[in-house]
Amino acid sequence: MIASTPTPPYYAVIFSSIKSDQTQGYDEMAEAMAQMVMQQPGYLGHESARDGIGITVSYWDSLESIKKWKAVSEHLEAQIKGRSTWYQSYKTRICKVEREYAFEKMDESK
Amino acid sequence: MIASTPTPPYYAVIFSSIKSDQTQGYDEMAEAMAQMVMQQPGYLGHESARDGIGITVSYWDSLESIKKWKAVSEHLEAQIKGRSTWYQSYKTRICKVEREYAFEKMDESK
Repeated sequence: MIASTPTPPYYAVIFSSIKSDQTQGYDEMAEAMAQMVMQQPGYLGHESARDGIGITVSYWDSLESIKKWKAVSEHLEAQIKGRSTWYQSYKTRICKVEREYAFEKMDESK
Repeated sequence: MIASTPTPPYYAVIFSSIKSDQTQGYDEMAEAMAQMVMQQPGYLGHESARDGIGITVSYWDSLESIKKWKAVSEHLEAQIKGRSTWYQSYKTRICKVEREYAFEKMDESK
């Protein structure tokens, strides 16, 4: 689903990753983090897709909320395991969303 | 591949989309746009993944370069056809990348 985000400005974290061939425990971690991130203060939504490269974008009300989520202990553990095991490489980009345009097709069946 | 981008600040366009069931001509357009975007002034790189939701992030040196790419005639045509045919919904977010962290695993075979 495309995340329903508020009128800008707000913040985005773009996490782009290439997995290693050591995938044991990855899916469980990814699911646990997806559940956990939704409970964080300041979380606005997230979107995720993978085919070869994985791109996960999470949206936040402030840089402070992003910093707090980065420091949540289970998330810190996932980051450490990510570097030691699951990821070949990744890049995290912290962004300020300045403008947003949306399109939604009318439901022509109604 | 993860895009090799310069030291921030720079800009990102996050394009998140859900396709309709009318896919004729989509792959050709997507490939043509991927080739064309790389030729644009101010283009820094892009990343793309789709499974269910599609997420394409392109990186740019300035808002001015993003504006010019939006107005390239072949790209305008693709946008119109996208709304009339290929996409059920999409969201475009224009962002300023403020910070970037990279990780790359050492090649242990060497």
